[in-house]
Amino acid sequence: MESPASPSTGALPYYVAFSQLLGLTVVAVTGAWLGLYRGGIAWESALQFNVHPLCMVIGLVFLQGDALLVYRVFRKEAKRTTKVLHGLLHVFALITALVGLVAVFDYHRKKGYADLYSLHSWCGILVFILYFAQWLVGFSFFLFPGASFSLRSRYRPQHIFFGASIFVLCVGTALLGLKEALLFQLGAKYSTFEPEGVLANVLGLLLIGFGVVVLYILTRSDWKRPHQAEEQALSMDFKTLTEGDSPSSQ
Amino acid sequence: MESPASPSTGALPYYVAFSQLLGLTVVAVTGAWLGLYRGGIAWESALQFNVHPLCMVIGLVFLQGDALLVYRVFRKEAKRTTKVLHGLLHVFALITALVGLVAVFDYHRKKGYADLYSLHSWCGILVFILYFAQWLVGFSFFLFPGASFSLRSRYRPQHIFFGASIFVLCVGTALLGLKEALLFQLGAKYSTFEPEGVLANVLGLLLIGFGVVVLYILTRSDWKRPHQAEEQALSMDFKTLTEGDSPSSQ
Repeated sequence: MESPASPSTGALPYYVAFSQLLGLTVVAVTGAWLGLYRGGIAWESALQFNVHPLCMVIGLVFLQGDALLVYRVFRKEAKRTTKVLHGLLHVFALITALVGLVAVFDYHRKKGYADLYSLHSWCGILVFILYFAQWLVGFSFFLFPGASFSLRSRYRPQHIFFGASIFVLCVGTALLGLKEALLFQLGAKYSTFEPEGVLANVLGLLLIGFGVVVLYILTRSDWKRPHQAEEQALSMDFKTLTEGDSPSSQ
Repeated sequence: MESPASPSTGALPYYVAFSQLLGLTVVAVTGAWLGLYRGGIAWESALQFNVHPLCMVIGLVFLQGDALLVYRVFRKEAKRTTKVLHGLLHVFALITALVGLVAVFDYHRKKGYADLYSLHSWCGILVFILYFAQWLVGFSFFLFPGASFSLRSRYRPQHIFFGASIFVLCVGTALLGLKEALLFQLGAKYSTFEPEGVLANVLGLLLIGFGVVVLYILTRSDWKRPHQAEEQALSMDFKTLTEGDSPSSQ
């Protein structure tokens, strides 16, 4: 009721809470799987491999998912604050993922295993490069002062589509990795409903659930940040950045 | 320029052509993989298993993807014709997938293998049930005469979101199945860049590419079917269905 343009967002908080519950459960179940069935986590020793799934799930699934939700959760905060939070969450996600990547390459090197032969690794490298590129392009368009308002408006839908696609690809790559880890470890025992297999399958479904809920919140049109406020804030940002003025001083 | 509301769709035909090229390549490469490395296809004998991946890729990836594109490709045809085509393509996809499902369960039964233990099978059964449910609900809302115009308008965004999610889940499930088939067959040889492994990885990337292009066409806002024409056609549909009248007779 605060502005005539603000649409109903009645159920949004419940969906956001549910997404966070799912996301934290995903991280907890990943930790439980690695702790219960894979000996836990360490940088030295064979446990170094386990750093990889944990970091990737925290970085490229949970943190990335939350970065996508920032504009829906903080609907009334200044656009610039929301933007910086969105960019920062993606930086944390990127750094966490980088640690996870170094862990697996280092582990492979120590063990003398081949790199980048599997579909999981191909998808993983592809999506990591796309993620980094998307961050760089997003930064130069939206946080760097150079881009004009019309350029930003034209690029925004592309940024959102590729952001959502990269997130989905990350969830898919995690599922492929989970499957690979199960088949390497369990082999034929996977078909006897071993507890590890069942737990990992549940983890897979939770990953899918988190992905679907995040995308539902992101794409529901009446939960989008009101366009009017966005335009206003954007033009203020632009003014601020080009004239070195603060929006509050106007 | 035909109506003031019709937006530019300049590049749409090229994207649609590219999606079809990718989709047909996916089907061809699946066939080539099964023919070159898995002995081809037959209903009797051990080759029955191979019916499964081929049918699932044709049905739940290619045909389903094309069903999603119907409203973007046939932008100027009568809404009712487009609707029927959309429903029919989904029926063909469902029947093809059913053949693929029967093939794998029958093969498992003959071989005495366990059913539904893997993440691929859990996702597969889940998505098949969701797909069937979405078809039934979609049919009752959009093709059955009972639903009111406002009910249809409220359900439409949900139908589109869940349709797109189910499609993405189908592509993801196909990737998991591909990975499973590779690891069961190749085992440690997968890491030596065997030709079958490389071909299957390429097939995985093609599947992802098809999924991304279909979703890009589907979600690009200026390629949506013009809302005005849609409403008009919908109300005509409704009139036709409730009064037993044809739109042309008005």
